[in-house]
Formats: sequence, structure tokens, C-alpha cells
Amino acid sequence: MKIKEIKVIVCSPGRNFTTVKIITDEGVYGIGDGTVNGRELSVASYLEDHVAPALIGMDPLRTEDIWQYLYKGAYWRRGPITMAAISAIDMALWDIKAKVAGLPLYQLLGGRSRDKVMVYRHASGLEISEVVERVLAIKETGVEAIRAQVAIPGLPPIYGTGDSTDTAALKGRGAIVPHEEVWATHKYLPLVPKLFEKVRDAVGWDVHLLHDVHHRLTPIEAARLGKDLEPYRLFWLEDAIPAELQEGFRIIRQHTTQPLAVGEVFNSIYDTHTLITEQLIDYARVTSTHAGGVTGIKKIFDLAAIYHVKSACHGPQDVSPIAMGCNIHLDVAIPNFGIQEFASYTEQMFDVFKCAWSYDRGYLQPGEVPGHGVDFDESLAAKYPYKQAYLPIARLEDGAMTSW
Amino acid sequence: MKIKEIKVIVCSPGRNFTTVKIITDEGVYGIGDGTVNGRELSVASYLEDHVAPALIGMDPLRTEDIWQYLYKGAYWRRGPITMAAISAIDMALWDIKAKVAGLPLYQLLGGRSRDKVMVYRHASGLEISEVVERVLAIKETGVEAIRAQVAIPGLPPIYGTGDSTDTAALKGRGAIVPHEEVWATHKYLPLVPKLFEKVRDAVGWDVHLLHDVHHRLTPIEAARLGKDLEPYRLFWLEDAIPAELQEGFRIIRQHTTQPLAVGEVFNSIYDTHTLITEQLIDYARVTSTHAGGVTGIKKIFDLAAIYHVKSACHGPQDVSPIAMGCNIHLDVAIPNFGIQEFASYTEQMFDVFKCAWSYDRGYLQPGEVPGHGVDFDESLAAKYPYKQAYLPIARLEDGAMTSW
Amino acid sequence: MKIKEIKVIVCSPGRNFTTVKIITDEGVYGIGDGTVNGRELSVASYLEDHVAPALIGMDPLRTEDIWQYLYKGAYWRRGPITMAAISAIDMALWDIKAKVAGLPLYQLLGGRSRDKVMVYRHASGLEISEVVERVLAIKETGVEAIRAQVAIPGLPPIYGTGDSTDTAALKGRGAIVPHEEVWATHKYLPLVPKLFEKVRDAVGWDVHLLHDVHHRLTPIEAARLGKDLEPYRLFWLEDAIPAELQEGFRIIRQHTTQPLAVGEVFNSIYDTHTLITEQLIDYARVTSTHAGGVTGIKKIFDLAAIYHVKSACHGPQDVSPIAMGCNIHLDVAIPNFGIQEFASYTEQMFDVFKCAWSYDRGYLQPGEVPGHGVDFDESLAAKYPYKQAYLPIARLEDGAMTSW
Amino acid sequence: MKIKEIKVIVCSPGRNFTTVKIITDEGVYGIGDGTVNGRELSVASYLEDHVAPALIGMDPLRTEDIWQYLYKGAYWRRGPITMAAISAIDMALWDIKAKVAGLPLYQLLGGRSRDKVMVYRHASGLEISEVVERVLAIKETGVEAIRAQVAIPGLPPIYGTGDSTDTAALKGRGAIVPHEEVWATHKYLPLVPKLFEKVRDAVGWDVHLLHDVHHRLTPIEAARLGKDLEPYRLFWLEDAIPAELQEGFRIIRQHTTQPLAVGEVFNSIYDTHTLITEQLIDYARVTSTHAGGVTGIKKIFDLAAIYHVKSACHGPQDVSPIAMGCNIHLDVAIPNFGIQEFASYTEQMFDVFKCAWSYDRGYLQPGEVPGHGVDFDESLAAKYPYKQAYLPIARLEDGAMTSW
Repeated sequence: MKIKEIKVIVCSPGRNFTTVKIITDEGVYGIGDGTVNGRELSVASYLEDHVAPALIGMDPLRTEDIWQYLYKGAYWRRGPITMAAISAIDMALWDIKAKVAGLPLYQLLGGRSRDKVMVYRHASGLEISEVVERVLAIKETGVEAIRAQVAIPGLPPIYGTGDSTDTAALKGRGAIVPHEEVWATHKYLPLVPKLFEKVRDAVGWDVHLLHDVHHRLTPIEAARLGKDLEPYRLFWLEDAIPAELQEGFRIIRQHTTQPLAVGEVFNSIYDTHTLITEQLIDYARVTSTHAGGVTGIKKIFDLAAIYHVKSACHGPQDVSPIAMGCNIHLDVAIPNFGIQEFASYTEQMFDVFKCAWSYDRGYLQPGEVPGHGVDFDESLAAKYPYKQAYLPIARLEDGAMTSW
Repeated sequence: MKIKEIKVIVCSPGRNFTTVKIITDEGVYGIGDGTVNGRELSVASYLEDHVAPALIGMDPLRTEDIWQYLYKGAYWRRGPITMAAISAIDMALWDIKAKVAGLPLYQLLGGRSRDKVMVYRHASGLEISEVVERVLAIKETGVEAIRAQVAIPGLPPIYGTGDSTDTAALKGRGAIVPHEEVWATHKYLPLVPKLFEKVRDAVGWDVHLLHDVHHRLTPIEAARLGKDLEPYRLFWLEDAIPAELQEGFRIIRQHTTQPLAVGEVFNSIYDTHTLITEQLIDYARVTSTHAGGVTGIKKIFDLAAIYHVKSACHGPQDVSPIAMGCNIHLDVAIPNFGIQEFASYTEQMFDVFKCAWSYDRGYLQPGEVPGHGVDFDESLAAKYPYKQAYLPIARLEDGAMTSW
Repeated sequence: MKIKEIKVIVCSPGRNFTTVKIITDEGVYGIGDGTVNGRELSVASYLEDHVAPALIGMDPLRTEDIWQYLYKGAYWRRGPITMAAISAIDMALWDIKAKVAGLPLYQLLGGRSRDKVMVYRHASGLEISEVVERVLAIKETGVEAIRAQVAIPGLPPIYGTGDSTDTAALKGRGAIVPHEEVWATHKYLPLVPKLFEKVRDAVGWDVHLLHDVHHRLTPIEAARLGKDLEPYRLFWLEDAIPAELQEGFRIIRQHTTQPLAVGEVFNSIYDTHTLITEQLIDYARVTSTHAGGVTGIKKIFDLAAIYHVKSACHGPQDVSPIAMGCNIHLDVAIPNFGIQEFASYTEQMFDVFKCAWSYDRGYLQPGEVPGHGVDFDESLAAKYPYKQAYLPIARLEDGAMTSW
Repeated sequence: MKIKEIKVIVCSPGRNFTTVKIITDEGVYGIGDGTVNGRELSVASYLEDHVAPALIGMDPLRTEDIWQYLYKGAYWRRGPITMAAISAIDMALWDIKAKVAGLPLYQLLGGRSRDKVMVYRHASGLEISEVVERVLAIKETGVEAIRAQVAIPGLPPIYGTGDSTDTAALKGRGAIVPHEEVWATHKYLPLVPKLFEKVRDAVGWDVHLLHDVHHRLTPIEAARLGKDLEPYRLFWLEDAIPAELQEGFRIIRQHTTQPLAVGEVFNSIYDTHTLITEQLIDYARVTSTHAGGVTGIKKIFDLAAIYHVKSACHGPQDVSPIAMGCNIHLDVAIPNFGIQEFASYTEQMFDVFKCAWSYDRGYLQPGEVPGHGVDFDESLAAKYPYKQAYLPIARLEDGAMTSW
């Protein structure tokens, strides 16, 4: 069996997605997701101009070899664009292999280790009372883990804290420049414990509560927040600080027993090996689109298992339903599954990406069709061409660029 | 002053180069290099599709803000494509700023710390005797530091060990797939000490000799090679192991006093901060194209200075003459300069890239014109369109992918 | 361009300041601050007798080379007198370079990273109620960050805890000997949480509160104080312990999430590199007068940025308005600015030192004139000759010398 | 007893020396050395303008209190100028105290721990053969430990490697600017083992051989040199690298069993506590003039004793015969004495500084008169006024400033 053709399609059924389709000489094909939110075309070029030509004629079942070929062969390794391209190829190859085997992907990853995949969902609002209502509403649907975020009085609503549909981010869609948001840590820090006091009061103790800091703190601020949140027993505190400096987590870790999660921006095991081997985190949030596909994140989760660290794949709409499928197959198979982020998708997106995976009352199932179970309607995708869009950027009140 | 237009041009006067030209509303312009060998179009897309639109209207003198805007604002940070794009913008902005100041770039970086910039050049051959001849020939031209590489008997000539003109690499030019080379560590390890025994015999002790391992060893193999080479007193042993695992150098370091260099594939200070603060290397080989432009590598070299680590900018033809210019301005300005790699360029390349910097008998000068001193002939560049090309990849004798 | 003349002037428009003026053969000149409070003439001698003669004829644009010449060339490196002399020269040279470039200094340091520079101001009093009043009064003026200090019942008012105009320090002016103060840690420790309880009650949560310990505690005492202050969420705890033993901060750090600041007495990156790389502090309080001028503190702040540590330049009247100018140019340019201390100056001082920088309602601006923007009226300065003055010293109640 | 008067005298009987004379109301006086080579007047100003006025009226027997008063009371602590001033005062106070006790100083430091003080002397030359001759000649005089240095072929003779009388340094005397020397590590490194091979051949194994690197290497170069010298069993390798980064010695230490010495530029226990507590050196080379007088270096040697580190006071002509006297009293008293550097003085110097200490065939004796045993002829000193002089500075062959 040989790789005959590789197509790269950027479509935008509401969001831009970079999709790879690998077609073999035997007609079997596989698809993969290489979306990097706000940099979709650069990945597409990486795939189309530099990767695809080199893979034609290769044996698609050599998933490990092709992964290494693209990783080591790039010479300049790692980074979001390179690894998203590798990830997309890797997902598509695993899709082909599982189809050739006539098995759902998870069977090739060890088979089922659990019956179902617990998710967490997002509750956000402009006021604490609004967040409380949404948490209660989500709980009503059977969800057992909920991330709660609230807008900060005195600041305009911003990404991840203002509303559950991320309209702030969408302001950038079709725009020439990223939406600029404003951040003020000192207005945020005292608010979060108040939020969780109210949410706990309303929702009780039989729901997991999570919170995402979006990389906006320094280590000592994160440590303080972790301590402040201990009474509310959060499931985790996510992305507390920017994580290029992995040893930054040492400061947080020594001050609080608040479980910690990070990793949605990671693209290599070397972005997280210190965090894991020093036991600085509890959940590795890598996702198949950004951290090397099925091959890449399986290895990260295998390392994590040695050190009591669990999986928690990143899963909002900035990875496509294909990646979600791969994540779910991994979730069901690995021994150290923790939780799966899930924001679902629009109907339009589900029209373009046909999914065998399914969601019901707080749990996901991978589906039982051969492959990863996500298919792609090329002709429909063509109706949704790429639309210039960016994630917002964040500035402090004095105008300085800051992390988020 | 505002950024009015940003052009991205990929040209190929013998090699592919990705060039950025930033034009201001006052007519002053600057140029920068974003070349990633074998991935040039992906960087071009990153710049053209995602970066350029967002920068129009910005103040070009805000070099630090724009650097942070592109770094933090990308959300998925670091990596070769992202950082090459940032590097290209940064070089062009410093070019503009130095022109506005009416000063050669080095004056803005601290002024002259030295009179001239020592380079090392490459001597390679298929036989040891051929390498010896080339080393002697290069020494005759006044060069004081020479990197020596030799092909391995029983293996086909490979990149960096086979010939001084890197024709192995060029085999990929115009080809659809990367050239595949074969590697066998056990054939290589005993050869290198023999090479340097002969070279030292021939050339004596008043020339610096260097050797590049091209990331092909494990730490303990590198430690052994380091010890074996001690009698020949090499200036450095370069890229001894793949360096994503910075702590891998601890093993080498504890076994040999052979000075060590690494960094040409690094794109962030976080790729090297452990190597530097633990004093695991002696030369940081980052280059302005890949590690964040003038802004990025200046910070890396400043960190290095605290820990007795010196600069050694990567400088073969996979960075353009623009990057070479920026490197030379930094080389002449920083207190902890070590050495500059220099492979020069072809006449064709010098026609497209007009350089104020100059080379003479083993030393470089930055030139004294305002800016970084490299200009770009767009219409001539248009005559050399992009040609598909790759760096070669390496496999072991059993067919497995390996690092190089 | 050559250095033609170097003048060293010690004047005292209310405080003693050691000023350097470097004049070039082309008429451009620059000025720098070398004030070491209580040791002003020794710096003046260092500059006049040992530094100035050696620099005549040198190229003033070679800022890095001259810095290294004075640092490495001193043989006995570092220390407050040596580094204040180097700092003064460095500021004057950057002033010249920015004038030659026709740009405000911040443009040579990376351009604007923010719109304005947040300051903190001082509120002190003999009684807690008096401090509360002053905090409220300062808040009224628009200031967003206030340092609060109170005198200790049972002890005479002492420096930094007694009054906002530092009259205690001024008691030494014209005196032959330093004023001797009395310190008792056990009377101080329980007082500070009470102070901040009252201040928080009165001023609310939308003002940053700071406290300066003046190096008076041991590590474990500081750790205890840090924990005791956590309910009041201080912006920082400053100079908790004497800092020659950098590892002393480890004890504080492992016990409290109270953010920590230190560095006003530091004069070298080696005074702080362990504090920064081990992430033991949150704010580096070095200032351009004492830690190597623009060249010196830029490198410290760049190191700090890697480890989540922010800038917080020391800025009371023991650095001159020249240093304040340089600090503000750095503040506006570096990515990791935290806050700027600001005690302003008297009218008399502003007559002698003409400043392009300006203050308004809690924020500073560097001004837009070429250079660092501070000029010096030599003939007016001559009317305020040096007056013997000291900082006070501190003794325990049993008479033993102690730190402050 | 009270301090009545403090005189500060800079004289130059061949070299500049900064001397302090403290006179009590009871007529007893003491003298101390505050010489910082090339910065003598700045120390004099520190003492005369800032220290002396504050000490008048104090009890001269309170040596510890006055030391702390000047150290902690300076606010900006440490550094060569501050500590030389403190050192000078401290020596003079100990001189007074021992005179008051009617005892030689060593009795107050613990009494005699040994009968005599072994010195090492300097043998230098332009050629190896010349050095060998001098070593032999010095050995003939009974000296048991000899430091050997040789000039480097291809470089002009430089400080400490060229000649035994340091005429290179003296070129700066009376000059406006420091003499500039040229350094090239790669020309030096292979020479030193050859030197010691020849010296060992000639002088045999019953003489201690020492070598001074003058801070000119990087850690890995020093490690290599240490290994290369192991066959010649040196007593020590001195000042292998610049030592502000104390952890730099870790690299040297892990590669060689060559004993290491450093410390002549140290002025505080915090300059050396990591070197000592991590056992990175074998000899602490602090001297009473620069590291806090008798009080200061006694504490450093006490710390050193805990960690098997021995004393080796710096002792060339850039400390005055007063400091040499204090050093010898300490040498004879402390349990962990190692060796004493001794370059002796000219007759002119001995006329100005009358010494009770004495030298004979490789050994020093402190003398048995009360005090430290050195007196000072003020009226004779007045005949030798200060003459502008500098230590030379060093540049690499490309013109860059380097350490020495």
C-alpha cells in the first residue's frame, strides 16, 4: 500500500480548520487535523509545499517512521506549525491503518480501558449570578465537571472570562487585525474565590469545578490563587502561568495542594517532560492536533502515567472534530485518562465533519466504525472558504503586551 | 512613522531565501530574513497571511512591542516557523530604526566592542588526505579557524562530511523528495580522532580546529568522542547530540573538557537557558534568522555572558546575507563574542543581496552605512523564483530514521 | 567623535548628587548620575582621579566597550563606589548616543512597550491613623500604588517608618556623624498586620499597597510576616532581609505567597542572579545609578524576564533626576516592567536638573527629546555645594549594630 | 579611650599606598592599609570625607562594632572601595588594641599555631629557560614554594607572565591611561604544561610549584589546563577564571584534581561562601587590605577551616607592608594556614614602613613587638606624593576587552 495523494483543505464552517486527506493507491483514505487557530494557512503551506510531495509513494502503515521522518527530517524541529503538520499527517495515517485493520482506532491503542469518557464543559458569564445559573443549567444536562469563568468588573469582557460562546474571539473574524483585550491581574485575583464560593453554594459538592487562568499570572500570583481556592476544592487550576519556563511551576506547587493542569499550547514532549518528571502538574492538556497526533500525545500520556499525571486533552473549537475523534479514542484506551474538554461544534461543522463519536449527558463515546470515525465532506467544505481570523491579543491597562 | 506595506519575497539565487521588506509611510524601509531551509514557503505564508495584515499602521520603532505582539499574540509560541517570521520582522524593524538614527546597527547594540569579527570556514573531503589539503589551502587564505569533516569509508558521502560545497544537500534541489543518507556511528567514532591527528600534524597548532557532529550521537558516545579528541585540542565539538533534551549535555560535560557548541536549530531562549545556566556548553550557536532576530539573540547572548558562554552565530547559506549582516553587527558589539561561522555566498546571491558587510582573510566587518547594511534587489530577485528543495535526511544502515 | 572632557560635579540642592558631564569634540554632551548617598565624594574621586583621565580621546559611542573597560579594567570589580562611577559614565554615554541618533533614549532600548509608567509613592506616619490619612490623601491624587510605613510605639521614629519626608535622614545633613536609630523586631512584627488591616479597611481593594522592611528581619521572621500579611494582599514585601546571602530568600519563599521585592543596594548582576534564576523574588529593584547604568540594569531586567521577575527601579531622592530619567526610559521600553518608585524632587532640584520626563496622577512619561532628556545647570549647581550628610544607622535596644 | 584623630595619607615610595593612622586621646595610635591599586584616591576620599568624621570620639577597642558600623551603616555594602576603607580602619584598630594589651597581634588572634610562615615567591621570564634559571636561583635561597610564569611567544610580555618585577604594570606609572596588553588564550594554553615539564625536570620534586592564570580562562579551558598540569603536581592553579560567578568553578572541579586557589579580588565573605561550602577551591587568597581587615579575613578563614580550605593571603606590592604584617600575624595564628604570597618590598618602601616582621629563607616571622608591628614614617612618606598609576588592562587580539 502506498500513499498516492495528499490533499490539504482549509475550510471555515464558522471557524477555520486545516484538514489533511491522505489517499492510498488502494483507495483507502484517512483524514487529519492540522489547525492552528489564527495561523491556518501557514500550516497548510507547510503541508502542501513541503511535506506532501515527500510522502507520495511511502507506505502509509509506517506511522512511526513517517512521524520521525517529518520530525527529525525537518532539521528545525518542534514548534506549533511544524508539529500541527506532523499531527495532521499522523492522524490521517492512523485512520488508514485502523480502516485497513477493520477496527476502531482505540483497538490499536490498547483497546478499551474504560466504558465512557467524562468531559468537562464551559460555563461563563458577565456576572457571577449568570455563571451560577449556567453551571446549574449544565449540571442539569448530566455533566459532572464544569469550568467556570466570569467577566471582570471594570474591564471589558474578554476571551474565556466573558461569555460561553467566545464571541470576543470571534470579533477577529474577517478582521484585518486581532481584537485587543485588556487585562488587570489585581482586578481578577480577588474575584475568583468569590465566584467559586457562590458556585459551590449553588451547585454543591457532587460536581467537579474547574477554572482556567489562560496563562495570565506570575508563579507567585498563581500560588496565591491556588491557596485561596483550596476551600472550594477545584478539580484543577488550568494554565496558571505561561509555561515555556517549566520550572516556573515549582513556585506554585510548593504553596498549594490545588491540582494543576497545563499543556494546550505544548507541541512536544520536551515542553512538558520537566513538568511531569518533577511532578509539577496533575493533568497534561496536550491535544492530538498540536502535540504530534496520535503518536505524539500517546507518548506524552505514557510518560505522564509513570508520574501520576493524567490526561486532559484540549478540546474547544480550535481543534477540528477529527482531532476530537482521535482524542476520544485515546481517552478510552489509555490507563491514565483524567478528563476530556468538550465544547461541541455547530451543526454546520458537523455537516462538514461527519462524526462517529457521540456525546450524551457528560460522556463521550468514540464510536465503533473502523478508523477514528470522522469523515470529511470535501464538496461541502468548499462552500466555506477560509476567512481571515485571529485569536485576540491581550494588553495591560498601561498598553503593554501581556500573556493570555 | 508608520508601517505602510510589508512585502514577502521568496527567491532562489542558488538557494531559497524568504525575505521581508517593511516600508514606512516616510519612505524608509528595512529588510529581514526568515529563511527556514526546506520550509521557506510556510514561513512566507505565516508572514504574508497572518503577520503582515496585523502590522500595517504600527509604529516601526516599537521593536520590543512588536516582538512581544507576535510572540505572545501567536498563542502557540516558539518553533522554527513562528520564530523565523518574528525574526524577519525584527531584523527589518532594527534596519529601519538604525536608518532613522543614521547609524550602523551595531551602534544601537552597544557600539564596537572589537575591531573585527573572526570567522571559521569549512574544510570537508572524501578522504582524510583531501581534508588535510583543504585545511592547508584555507589556512593559506589567512583563515584562523577551520571546521574539518570527512566522509566515512563504507558509507556514501553525506551532508557536512562529504564535500566542502555541500553538494549532497543540493541534490535535493528541484527534487520532489529529500535525499536520503546513511549513517553508522560505529564507523564514524574511530575515524574522527584519526582525522584530527592527521590535520594537526599537517597544519600545526596555530590554527583553531572545529568539528561538527550534526546531532548524530548519544550523550555517552559524545562524551567518549570528546575525550578521544582532547589530544588535538579542538576549538569546539559542535551539535554533539540532539538538543531538545538540554540535560543530555550533562553526561558529555562530566566526562570531557572538550569545549562544546550547540544552538543552530534553537529558536527560543527556553531552548538554551538550562544549557547556559548549568554551564553545559561554551558556545551558543543561535542565529538571528531562527532565534528571534536582533532582539531575540541579543537576549540569549546577554544571558550567556553571565555564565562564561560565548556567541557563535550559525552562518552557512541557509541564512541569507541579511541575517549574516545582523549577526556581524551583533558580533562586533557584544562583549562575549566567540566566533562567526561563514560559508560566504555566490556572486548571484551577492547580486540580489547588496551587502555593506565585507570579508577579508578570515575576518568580517559590518560596514558603516546606517542600518544593518544589506539591501535587496527585488526585480533581480524575481528572476530567481523558488525552487523546491530539501535538506537531506538520514537513516541508519537498518533503515531507521536517525538524527542529523 | 571623541570624548574631549569629563567634568565631575558634586552639588547639593537639598541633597548631595554626584554628576558626570561628558563633552565630545563635536560639542554633543551627555550627563550621568553617580550618587551614593553618604559616600558622594568617594565616587567623585573615583571618577575624577581614576576614570576620567583614561577615557579622554575614546569614542563615546562605544558604550559596551567602555563599560567593560571600566568593569574588567578595575581589576577589583563591583561594589557601590566602582559601579556608581561606571553607571554615571554609562548614562552620559547613552545620552550622547541617543542625541547623535536624534531619538529619545527609549527608542534605542526597544521602543515603547507601554503608554505610561505606573509609580508607587510613600505614605508614612507616627500613628496608624496618620498613615491611613496619608494613604487616602495620596489615593486622591490619582496614585494607584502606595507604600505604607508606620513608626513603632515605644521606639523613636526611624527612617522610612516615621514620616513621609524622611526628615530622620535629613537630621544627618550638615552633621559630623550619622543619626543613630533604635530597632526592635519584636515590637515591629505584630504592628505591620494591624497597619494594613486599618489601611485596607479605609482604602479598599482597588489600590496597590506595598511595605518596606528595610532589611531588618531574619529569613524566618520575614516568612512569618509574609504569611501574616497575606489577608491584606500586598503588592509586595520589600527588602525583607539583608540580601548578600541570596539563598536566604529560599526560607521566605517556601512559606509565603506574598510577592517579594529586593535590589536597591545591588550593583551587579551577580548580586541577583541566584534570586532570579531560582525565582526567589518577584521584583528586581535595581536602579541605573547603582547597578551599572542603562547597560547594567537592562541586562538584569532581561535576565529577570526569563524567570517571571519584573522591574521596579529604586527611585527616591538618593538617585538624581538623571537616573530617574534613565529609569523611566527603561521602564517604558522593557517588556517586563513592574512598577517605578517615585518620591519626586524639590523645586530647587528641578531648577538644577531640567527634566523632559514628567509626572501626572500616578504615572510618569519619559519625554520625547533626544537623549535621556535630563539636562544640568552647572552654574546653578555651583550655588549648592556639597554638605556633609549621612543616612542614619540602626542599633538594637541593647546597643548592637543591626541592618536596615 | 577614644579616637581623637584619623589621618589618611597617600604616598608613593615606588608604588601608591593609602594609609590610615588612627590616633587616640591617650596617644596610642594604630595604622592600616587601604590600598586599591589604581584607585587609591577614591579610598582616601571614602575614608577622609565619609568615614573619619563619624568615628571621632568612638572607643577604638570596639573593633567588631566599628566594623559592623561601617559595613551595615554604609547601606550600599561591599565592593573594593568600601571594604578597603573598612579594612584600613580595622587594621589600625587591632594595632591599637594589641598595643594596649602590650602583646603582638597574633596573641589576640589565638596565639601561635605554628613556628613560621611558609611563603611562595615569583619566578617569571621571557623564555622558559629563563624561568627555569630563576626558579633554581630562588630555590637556592631556601624558598620551598615558587610561582612560575612565562611570556607567550607571539605576544608582547604581559603582566605576571613576562618578568618578575612587573615592569609591564609599571609602564602605567605617571601615565594618563592604563597600559593596554594583548591576550590570546590559544597561544597560552599549550605553553604552560611545557613550562612545568621543564621546571620540574630542573628543580625536582621537593619544591612546591604554583601557577597564576590571572582570571584569563573560561571554566572549560581552566579544566583542560588543570588536567594537562596534573603530571607536574602543582601546589595550586590560581585565579583560573573570573570569579563573580562562583559556580563557574564547578566545571573546573569536576574535571581535575589540580588544587585550586582564588580570592585576591574578593572583598566579602559572600564573594567566596559558595566556593567554600561547595568545596570548589582549596586555598582562599583573600588579603587583609581588601577583604575587611583582620576582622574580615579571620572570619573567612574560619569558614574555610570547616570545609578543608586553607589560607593563602594575597601579598604582592599592591598591599602595603602594613597589610603584610597583619597577614603574617593571622598566618601564624589560624589553624588552617596554607601559604603566604611574598614579593617583598624595596628599600625605599621599608624606609617609609618600618616592619617588625621579617623574612628569612622562605619563611616569615611576625615579630614580637606589641601591635601588628608595622610603623609609618609620615614625614618621609610626604616626600613621595601620589603619582597617577594604573594596572594594565587586557584586550584580545581583535581588540575586545578581556579579563585578567
